[in-house]
Amino acid sequence: MRKILVLARASALSAALCAIPCYASGDTERGAPKTTESSSGANGRYWTLADQLIVPRLWSVTVAADGKSAAYVTRVADAASNKTDARLILADLESGESREVLRSPWIDQVRRIPGSSAWSALVDRGQGVQLYRIEADGRVDPIVVHPATAKFGDIDGRLFPGVAHAPITVGVRAYSWSPDGRRLFHITLDSVSDQGKILLDEKVSEQRGLRRLTGQATASLHLRAANGQVTLIARRPRTDLLSTMSKGDVVWNKDGFQFPVMDTDNSGGQRRVTMAWSFSDKRAREIASTRDYVYWQMVGPRGGQLSTEGFGDQREIVEVGEDGKRHSYGKHPFSIGHGATFGGARSPDAQTTAVSIRALDDPRFGIGVVTRDGVRPIWSDGSLTKCDFTPTLAIAACLAESQTQPPTLVTVDVRSGRTMRVASVSPEHEKITPLQVTPRAWTNRYGHKVSGYIVWPRGYQKGQRYPAIVVTHGNDADQRFALQDNQWEYPVQTFAERGYVILLINEASSRLNPEIRAADQAWGLQGKALPPEKMRELLWLTAAASFEDAVTELAREGIVDPQRVGIAGYSRGSQLVNVAMTQSNFFRAASSGDGGYLEPVAAADMPESYIAVFGGLPYDPQALPNYLALSPSLRAGEACGAILQQVAAPHAASIDFYRALRKAAVPTQISLFPGESAASDETHVFHIPSNRMAAMQENIAWFDYWLLDKRDPESPFADRYAGWDAMKGALPARCR
Amino acid sequence: MRKILVLARASALSAALCAIPCYASGDTERGAPKTTESSSGANGRYWTLADQLIVPRLWSVTVAADGKSAAYVTRVADAASNKTDARLILADLESGESREVLRSPWIDQVRRIPGSSAWSALVDRGQGVQLYRIEADGRVDPIVVHPATAKFGDIDGRLFPGVAHAPITVGVRAYSWSPDGRRLFHITLDSVSDQGKILLDEKVSEQRGLRRLTGQATASLHLRAANGQVTLIARRPRTDLLSTMSKGDVVWNKDGFQFPVMDTDNSGGQRRVTMAWSFSDKRAREIASTRDYVYWQMVGPRGGQLSTEGFGDQREIVEVGEDGKRHSYGKHPFSIGHGATFGGARSPDAQTTAVSIRALDDPRFGIGVVTRDGVRPIWSDGSLTKCDFTPTLAIAACLAESQTQPPTLVTVDVRSGRTMRVASVSPEHEKITPLQVTPRAWTNRYGHKVSGYIVWPRGYQKGQRYPAIVVTHGNDADQRFALQDNQWEYPVQTFAERGYVILLINEASSRLNPEIRAADQAWGLQGKALPPEKMRELLWLTAAASFEDAVTELAREGIVDPQRVGIAGYSRGSQLVNVAMTQSNFFRAASSGDGGYLEPVAAADMPESYIAVFGGLPYDPQALPNYLALSPSLRAGEACGAILQQVAAPHAASIDFYRALRKAAVPTQISLFPGESAASDETHVFHIPSNRMAAMQENIAWFDYWLLDKRDPESPFADRYAGWDAMKGALPARCR
Repeated sequence: MRKILVLARASALSAALCAIPCYASGDTERGAPKTTESSSGANGRYWTLADQLIVPRLWSVTVAADGKSAAYVTRVADAASNKTDARLILADLESGESREVLRSPWIDQVRRIPGSSAWSALVDRGQGVQLYRIEADGRVDPIVVHPATAKFGDIDGRLFPGVAHAPITVGVRAYSWSPDGRRLFHITLDSVSDQGKILLDEKVSEQRGLRRLTGQATASLHLRAANGQVTLIARRPRTDLLSTMSKGDVVWNKDGFQFPVMDTDNSGGQRRVTMAWSFSDKRAREIASTRDYVYWQMVGPRGGQLSTEGFGDQREIVEVGEDGKRHSYGKHPFSIGHGATFGGARSPDAQTTAVSIRALDDPRFGIGVVTRDGVRPIWSDGSLTKCDFTPTLAIAACLAESQTQPPTLVTVDVRSGRTMRVASVSPEHEKITPLQVTPRAWTNRYGHKVSGYIVWPRGYQKGQRYPAIVVTHGNDADQRFALQDNQWEYPVQTFAERGYVILLINEASSRLNPEIRAADQAWGLQGKALPPEKMRELLWLTAAASFEDAVTELAREGIVDPQRVGIAGYSRGSQLVNVAMTQSNFFRAASSGDGGYLEPVAAADMPESYIAVFGGLPYDPQALPNYLALSPSLRAGEACGAILQQVAAPHAASIDFYRALRKAAVPTQISLFPGESAASDETHVFHIPSNRMAAMQENIAWFDYWLLDKRDPESPFADRYAGWDAMKGALPARCR
Repeated sequence: MRKILVLARASALSAALCAIPCYASGDTERGAPKTTESSSGANGRYWTLADQLIVPRLWSVTVAADGKSAAYVTRVADAASNKTDARLILADLESGESREVLRSPWIDQVRRIPGSSAWSALVDRGQGVQLYRIEADGRVDPIVVHPATAKFGDIDGRLFPGVAHAPITVGVRAYSWSPDGRRLFHITLDSVSDQGKILLDEKVSEQRGLRRLTGQATASLHLRAANGQVTLIARRPRTDLLSTMSKGDVVWNKDGFQFPVMDTDNSGGQRRVTMAWSFSDKRAREIASTRDYVYWQMVGPRGGQLSTEGFGDQREIVEVGEDGKRHSYGKHPFSIGHGATFGGARSPDAQTTAVSIRALDDPRFGIGVVTRDGVRPIWSDGSLTKCDFTPTLAIAACLAESQTQPPTLVTVDVRSGRTMRVASVSPEHEKITPLQVTPRAWTNRYGHKVSGYIVWPRGYQKGQRYPAIVVTHGNDADQRFALQDNQWEYPVQTFAERGYVILLINEASSRLNPEIRAADQAWGLQGKALPPEKMRELLWLTAAASFEDAVTELAREGIVDPQRVGIAGYSRGSQLVNVAMTQSNFFRAASSGDGGYLEPVAAADMPESYIAVFGGLPYDPQALPNYLALSPSLRAGEACGAILQQVAAPHAASIDFYRALRKAAVPTQISLFPGESAASDETHVFHIPSNRMAAMQENIAWFDYWLLDKRDPESPFADRYAGWDAMKGALPARCR
């Protein structure tokens, strides 16, 4: 959990770069909706919680070599079975005909099988995750089946906790077809256990504070030849995360292939090593190694690495060769390389590279076509979030979506940039009359600019003041559709239906602000250390200020009632919520999701990160004042607003905050959502539909009660009102 | 674990009261052994680790009503099966003939069945713990069998962690026969689970830092009538610990019976309520209640509660009636009431009460016979540790043991006080030539007196200086045989065979020192708070000083080489070891067992206890200096001696100490001993024979290496020498 919280911000390093206009400045009301249009919802229906639940998680798209068909995977909650399953859909890109051919707890790494019309994928069909062949007609046959013993998910003995999925066991972890389809590289996992052994030193130390003991596995890398003979390439130790977490990142050439592994030395230092396997020698040798962690890598037309450099308007797309030579593709109103959407592709002649691009204000995703001549962007109405390219790079199949547009399968003609709609990915959401959503930017009291969106209440009436809720995950407010990774179990669209103004706000981008970039890097231990008071300001206080200043602006414009404003966020967002609530009394109510970073109890589990933030560990008398100035649990006595914490596991940090708030008589509740069994937990991003539904209902009950003084006797949380009444009655004098 | 650590000291409140001579002052060498005798071991054999392992844990004795036979239970490790099993032995008290009739993971509450020659007991025969009837010939039949769903032991979902036993499931928890044997009171348990539910607030908060989630159970109290009809007396909620932990504490009378339950009010306050069931009304009513926790209760001949009052020589045995009236039985060189040995009994005419008694220096246990005229002690050569009395109080069957005498079944004629040996409980240990053990007392630099024993090396030669190890559990150094509860996995007797002088030392008794008593009570939140510096001194520093001063005295006497002295202790002892090692550099090596109290990480889990000790929580700038002055992990930079921690679970506190020592370049190792499965842990007092053997071997390797610079290539820990060499080589300059 904690590692994720840190990474949540770290990933912002490579996102969020902006130079285009930040809101529709031509609108008279700074982006306020046309009220006439918003009342025309009569021809569709409105959002319900059931709609929130079944927003699909978009997984991946694969296009056939001829560009005539595609396969894509989504993950969708199913209330009836109380499971979130993956669905594999095959689509004819010409007719638009789509067909679900497989539904399973796990479908991943869908690939076209070269030289065939069939697909391959890693699927859990009851024997754990294995490699299967899926014919165009939907027939499924095993390709590689290996005893599934390695666990993934928030379960005891897991290899990795995973995100938003039920526990699975894995036999085949990753694979790759040679370009001619005759050879198959694949990785199988075998769990290894220390159970029954006496553990010493670091093996004991690493268990500190672990709720779910970590399991371990060795990875076996195999090559299946055209004649079916299988050769063991390597057996990698449990410390090789690149192999155990592999997605089959193999570079094939005519003599062999290259694959990455991770080596760990005696002192725990890690090195990414590129190995080359030779078909003729039948052995692998090391050809390169690096200690750097690389978030995203893509080779440009000049054979160098593509990246974006600089800040704000000075941003530049560049290609840097291995010799360090730098070629500039000029300044562009977007950044490149967003692994969250798609990786990228190169044409066979190496003259063209297709990458993902992202605009900064009103952040949407598109395709950047990089040639020696420059970078040509391809945009659709909203975002192109998942794209796969035919081998010639002529055609891409993508998923397109926006804040208001449910996901759609589209094709993109790369040469012309023309986008064609193929089929809806989620027809149920097409039936809903879209809400009004307007992009907006704000500049806060620190002079930091932030981007975001206003989701207007259905039937917004100018002149009327509305209650409002800020929803933040730090940096995922962009042109994607009701994205769970951003809005978690805060049912933004349903809140808008119920008359709330919702502000989806990002934090200030480190791509715009050198000082925030410096703080980010100091936090990530990659740059110069900054004084704790600067870290506090640049990484937390400025974000909290952004939220307050944004709301104040809308209040000044007569849109929002500043007496009825709440805030919600999970993960990185929960840090920001907890800080906002304990630094001022601006927000009357908050919902904080599965967080806890900044609490002193977690310092010992990630000392370097905490030292970077606080200048020392909490029992260091020099550093303690910095904790007292920032750690939410140590500032509970400053809070007044009602704080709900919804958690996926009983994190000590969240519990400490809960206890401190209770002790300070600040209204608070902590709710723990269960896992599938006593041996497993709900995931950081929830995946159990009943939990998701209950968490959304609880958020509605919580904000309705604390902001609007509204009770719903039908709410499944109606039995809490008496407790909330008691807390409201016991509010400390300083808060009245 | 942590609760136990606190109680470990708290229980000393009711132990340890002294007024008899503290060592055999007639010996020329202050208790040094007669060296001629010690070399006469040729007629027996010497201690081995296998002997250490199979020292029986003495469980209980039950005597038949006619005093002619007895049943007793021991728990003995079995290396072959790697299990510690309970054994039920039936003995003919006249002929001495003994027979093991049952061996099982669990045997408890052995009772005579009134009006029969058979016994009853709670036994796990494969269906969980149930109530069985055991005939004199060994035949076993079920009496009550209830689905066993409640878990005990260090396992996920446990109701209680238990001490020194493998995980068990329980159907029948407790029972009691009416005096005529026609009625049977019994308690069955049914586990209840919150699995799958959303948990709120306190139910989340209580999971903070829990490694093994706690399960819960309801208790059903039943009465079986003479005609076999079973009536449900009460179904008690999971909060009623008196019912779920019951041992069948029922007081029968002709009209019904009384039983205790625990009621919990809304604010968590607990009340012990005595209920009375009426045979005629067929219902229970409350007849008394109290909020006091009573450690030991026994009614005297005047109908009042018996207890010991005062300090040291002023100690007095008294009986206090319900009206507060106090009767003194005069001053005696022993205290009364030691639940660890046996509970006590009253004669049918209520004129006599038999209680356990304990001498303070050279602490041994006996029987106190209390009549209106006074208290008459019955002593044997060593201790009478487990006694059961015939209904008339004429005869007791007891287990007798001492530091050198293996446990033996004896009978005691209560009137004459005469003790008769019946049979050996552990014939294997009878074959060993006893080591020389002499009681001794020391007065430390604070003026506090402590008791203990010197275990002399086999073949001790006067004039030769020996390496020494202090072994402490705080207060269990007494006349019991190689007691695991005291010496844990420190193989005291084998160390003596290998040429070490062992000092078994208690801490200063709160029964002797009003100021220590005051500190103990402040710690237990029962008395006036003391300043942190006084708490530190009276509860930890004085104990550490006792160990150093005791060794210094023996060094002055030419017995011990002060350059080769180590210290070992578990639980309360581990606190004392960790403090000793971080307050001075007196000891060159230490072994600290399964502790961690005093570390700041544990403060949030028992805030009241920590506030009592430190004057606040660690993030309180006023209290932090007190942590810096005492918490071992915060004083790692003061340590130089090599510190081994052996733990039953990866306690964050122990890990913090390990990491701090490593960071300070102090030689250290932490070893985690596994449980039966991934879902369970070794217990605080180890019960898995392979762990016990390995822990003993590790302690030998550790002290041999760090004190004697001795390596044994045959040691299973020989592969650690290289690591220890490296740590020794990296010892900080300040330690050389």
